[in-house]
Amino acid sequence: MSVSPTEKTARTGHELDYLCANAIRVLSMDGVQKAKSGHPGMPMGMADASYVLWKVFLKHNPADPAWPDRDRFVLSAGHGSMLIYSLLYLTGYDLSMEDLQQFRQWGSRTPGHPEYGHTPGVETTTGPLGQGISTAVGMALAEQYLATKFNRPDFPVVDHYTYGICGDGDLMEGVSHEAASLAGHLKLGKLIFLYDANKISIDGSTDLAFTENVSQRFEAYGWHVQEVNGHNMAEVEVAIAQAQTETERPSLIVARTHIGQGSPNKVDTAKAHGEPLGDDEIRLTKHALNWPNETPFYVPDEVVTNMRRAVETGARQQEEWEVMMGRYREAHPDLAQLWDQMMARALPKDWDAVLPKFEPSEKGLATRAASGQTLNALAPAIPSLLGGSADLHGSNNTMIKGSPAIQADAFDGRNLHFGVREHGMGAIQNGMALHGGLIPYGGTFLVFSDYVRPAVRLAALMGVQSIYIFTHDSIGLGEDGPTHQPVEHVASLRIIPNVYVVRPADAPETAVAWRIALEHKDGPTALILTRQAVPTLDRGTDANQLTPADGALRGAYVLRDVENPQVILLASGSEVQIALEAAQLLADRQIAARVVSFPCWELFEKQDGAYRESVLPSQVTARVAIEAGLPFGWERYVGSSGNVIGVETFGASAPYKELYKQYGLTAERMADAAAALM
Amino acid sequence: MSVSPTEKTARTGHELDYLCANAIRVLSMDGVQKAKSGHPGMPMGMADASYVLWKVFLKHNPADPAWPDRDRFVLSAGHGSMLIYSLLYLTGYDLSMEDLQQFRQWGSRTPGHPEYGHTPGVETTTGPLGQGISTAVGMALAEQYLATKFNRPDFPVVDHYTYGICGDGDLMEGVSHEAASLAGHLKLGKLIFLYDANKISIDGSTDLAFTENVSQRFEAYGWHVQEVNGHNMAEVEVAIAQAQTETERPSLIVARTHIGQGSPNKVDTAKAHGEPLGDDEIRLTKHALNWPNETPFYVPDEVVTNMRRAVETGARQQEEWEVMMGRYREAHPDLAQLWDQMMARALPKDWDAVLPKFEPSEKGLATRAASGQTLNALAPAIPSLLGGSADLHGSNNTMIKGSPAIQADAFDGRNLHFGVREHGMGAIQNGMALHGGLIPYGGTFLVFSDYVRPAVRLAALMGVQSIYIFTHDSIGLGEDGPTHQPVEHVASLRIIPNVYVVRPADAPETAVAWRIALEHKDGPTALILTRQAVPTLDRGTDANQLTPADGALRGAYVLRDVENPQVILLASGSEVQIALEAAQLLADRQIAARVVSFPCWELFEKQDGAYRESVLPSQVTARVAIEAGLPFGWERYVGSSGNVIGVETFGASAPYKELYKQYGLTAERMADAAAALM
Repeated sequence: MSVSPTEKTARTGHELDYLCANAIRVLSMDGVQKAKSGHPGMPMGMADASYVLWKVFLKHNPADPAWPDRDRFVLSAGHGSMLIYSLLYLTGYDLSMEDLQQFRQWGSRTPGHPEYGHTPGVETTTGPLGQGISTAVGMALAEQYLATKFNRPDFPVVDHYTYGICGDGDLMEGVSHEAASLAGHLKLGKLIFLYDANKISIDGSTDLAFTENVSQRFEAYGWHVQEVNGHNMAEVEVAIAQAQTETERPSLIVARTHIGQGSPNKVDTAKAHGEPLGDDEIRLTKHALNWPNETPFYVPDEVVTNMRRAVETGARQQEEWEVMMGRYREAHPDLAQLWDQMMARALPKDWDAVLPKFEPSEKGLATRAASGQTLNALAPAIPSLLGGSADLHGSNNTMIKGSPAIQADAFDGRNLHFGVREHGMGAIQNGMALHGGLIPYGGTFLVFSDYVRPAVRLAALMGVQSIYIFTHDSIGLGEDGPTHQPVEHVASLRIIPNVYVVRPADAPETAVAWRIALEHKDGPTALILTRQAVPTLDRGTDANQLTPADGALRGAYVLRDVENPQVILLASGSEVQIALEAAQLLADRQIAARVVSFPCWELFEKQDGAYRESVLPSQVTARVAIEAGLPFGWERYVGSSGNVIGVETFGASAPYKELYKQYGLTAERMADAAAALM
Repeated sequence: MSVSPTEKTARTGHELDYLCANAIRVLSMDGVQKAKSGHPGMPMGMADASYVLWKVFLKHNPADPAWPDRDRFVLSAGHGSMLIYSLLYLTGYDLSMEDLQQFRQWGSRTPGHPEYGHTPGVETTTGPLGQGISTAVGMALAEQYLATKFNRPDFPVVDHYTYGICGDGDLMEGVSHEAASLAGHLKLGKLIFLYDANKISIDGSTDLAFTENVSQRFEAYGWHVQEVNGHNMAEVEVAIAQAQTETERPSLIVARTHIGQGSPNKVDTAKAHGEPLGDDEIRLTKHALNWPNETPFYVPDEVVTNMRRAVETGARQQEEWEVMMGRYREAHPDLAQLWDQMMARALPKDWDAVLPKFEPSEKGLATRAASGQTLNALAPAIPSLLGGSADLHGSNNTMIKGSPAIQADAFDGRNLHFGVREHGMGAIQNGMALHGGLIPYGGTFLVFSDYVRPAVRLAALMGVQSIYIFTHDSIGLGEDGPTHQPVEHVASLRIIPNVYVVRPADAPETAVAWRIALEHKDGPTALILTRQAVPTLDRGTDANQLTPADGALRGAYVLRDVENPQVILLASGSEVQIALEAAQLLADRQIAARVVSFPCWELFEKQDGAYRESVLPSQVTARVAIEAGLPFGWERYVGSSGNVIGVETFGASAPYKELYKQYGLTAERMADAAAALM
């Protein structure tokens, strides 16, 4: 049994401070109890340390959670959501006592896990372990990048910390390893995490599965590591101050804590983790804490008065920053204008004029190459664009030419090397986007989108703009074989709500795909790109030409039309050329075939019924789709009478033209399938 | 520029040894050159160390790659596949020179990355980085478990090492962190990995993104770490011997190597990594290596003679083991019988007699609870079953009651604590299955199947039997909210080829789901289970009863039938009860509705056309499906005229009954939708 907070209160003399920390405990216990579900133990264990962080250090303005230079706070251990809700309420955010009492109820502002965009002051959605700390790395990276870009002597435009709390579970997850290693590499000195080392996870003691030396591991990453008693406020305060002075290394403060601290019977047990303490134990706990009133959700006025000083302090801090920004606008008008543009993620006027034009070419080029050209054309015009690749720059065509790599001592470059850390990359992208000022992109092979997937889901759930450059998008990558050949990945990305999955057919559609990604500001976009060359189609307004690629903005469009089409051929990406060939073969057989290029299902679903009907007229039921992947889902567009040509199994290692033949992705087969439907 | 192997040959005097190592270099260069694609640099860098491992230490019988007590060798850096193909050819496996020359061609036995089941001697499919080393942890775990179970004084039935080679990329990936941490925790002393520390990844120097202290990190995990010159065979030999004597810790041997070693112009550059060296550079390399003949694929006879001694040695070693096993069968007949049963993953006669019976109950129970009961009933009968949970035993109902946890000093338990390491768990399961003797299972929340996904895909690609217990399978989990509510996950698992995704409707179907999983020996099975209670349906052969749950063995079956059905209601899992209610509502409206329970699409697709037609008669086009997830894919079964009721967006935090109402997953809506189709 640990020393109780009240004893320590007496010892340290910070009676009011411990009263405030206990208020967090009480609100957390009571909130979980009322909801009949939730996690009281973590907030109770971290009440002391988080109180110190928020009271002494955190630079924030509860009245304006969007102040750009606020410190970021990430509760990576998101199940302890009552901790942050309590802190937000107590420090005066737009979150009421009634909100706390609605914890975990339909329509409330206090969901089971913290959700970005849902509760003011919540910087990122957490709950899936490991994501929060990795996302925080992205925020700290963004801070350092923007500070390098905008700060000038006497003008600290961007100068804030990224703080957070993580738990044992976060540090067991692989994604946190990836992000922490990169954070150490980049020497993100303003990233400071408290590690709630309570030695308890859901199954019981962490000794069951987690006995590594975490401190030593983080030192190996190049982090600055301190160990403190997480219930001793003085120790925590010294450690955070120390972490601030360490500017060359991210900091991990290992806070030894007791889960459920204050609860006489459940402290230090897994029972405190994920269920209400129960009325009896709550009563005993309040008694042990010398809590003045047993009424649920009771908080002494002096606590509120003390903690709400944050409102005044924060307003003053932001005001000082605004004054400084006023002077900055005079001293550095160009930079200030750029600042406004980037923070708004605004696309400058006529930005699209720089989009490259691609001449028709039978030989064509790979859409990954077209993407690289487009990115390089856009980069000067859209300075918010910042990203890189998970060690596949050359393959993903993600390099901005002429710009150096971002490194610890060089944050003025524009090319990030994420290392072979796809999952960490996705989470870091989320943090960059959430920080503001940046539109992040990250590249890897499409097959490894599986590694990124949990971060993609969070981007979609949060509605943040993040761009994935997934190349080598089918068996068309050839010899690397089935471990590298995505067959199910396009479909499995299409399934995630709010992700735009764009698989362009040729270079001009690739430029349009980038436009879609840049204009999709409330969710992520996945660009699905070929390794192999595809013809650059002859498009225009002449009768003998195919239609312009702008049609892709509507998700699907008639690429090649005929009068009174008897059959509709649908395709995306590299298979569009096959559909065009098939249409020609059908023409030779006197069958009129329309070809629909179908780069983005989600956009097509957003079009009105009249447009959708104009592309896929109900009366034309003879429809064949082709895609170099699983047919899964195409039934929706070809209907019961239609047919889908796809790859029903994993691929194989061989040159890609051989694979297309072996898997029957041919114009002849498509034409035959269409003719059979007549 | 490094010391060339030839110089070292002279220095160490092991001329023949270096000739053999150079043969690996030559075959790798020539194989990649002929294929016009591949990765020569890694095999050239690790030729010396891998030669030492295979020549001096590896216990294997090239004539019988399935010998149960062979050492396992895992090439985690799978892109260096020509390394293992060269070693397999040179040591006398059933892999010919012609096979090497067919590298990366259609139908060849030497695909771009090593594929399990495709090439004799390849223990696991690698290529996706981080998977190999994590899978190897599972092999080493299986070894220790089976050794504890079967070994007796003088009878070392299971007594082998698990070796492997990993690269920088493997160690950047989070999954390797998860598995390595657990390997250290479990003190898997017979796991020995060579780390090809060549300081080069695809983008260039690892200094671009990877400057952590790997040795220190692995020491923090509890590994035994040594650092050697990977081109000095004597150093490597001493280090491996030392690693063998260290029985309490897994070993990492950091082998400092030069990628493309031997190539005068490409050594130590990313150019050596992933493309052919080119004819000129190959000529220069062969010259630098003093290679006796420039003819592609030339290997001196003395190399083959020297390395093929493995055939004789291996045969003798296996023979000795077989003799020992003969004595073992006499001394320990019961154990020997159990050994045969487990190694065959055989289900004992009448094993299914132990499957629990569940009485009809309106209150019912959660299918996760039914799964726990089934698992506990099966565990005594099927000793091959071994698994656990990623820190959610209580939630996943994965605990075998009365059996202790497996810990470093206690490998006689049957409950694994994987920690909060879902991805590592999936890869470790793969290793356990590949080792032989075990049918592994692992549990987590369904939403975190996203974390496991890359390992699920490999299980499916390899065709190994692995069981996932994914609980909390929909918005039905309630208050934890959208971060924990899978909406797209059932569909996204159904997309992966060769995965059985089974979502049982009630307790009896859950028992059948386990039967499906146990009988699906050539691929993984995902059990999709509810958190919340569902009624245990009244099934039997009486006219007023629903049909028996055995129908689930065919993937989908008529659960409630009517004469001349006018409409078919399709559902899986917890929504089957809604479909049944809807059928009753329709009956009240004089509409005859058949209800089809649809737990497993993959199995239904394997049924013959007559059966499928009998369940879903073509003439009944009025069909409504309901699933507490995205409708994606159900179009295939409801057809163009049908309707799917699903959840089109992320969920929300609230009690689950409220969520079902808010998202319209109700019998009334389903009945209305069906009536509207009349």
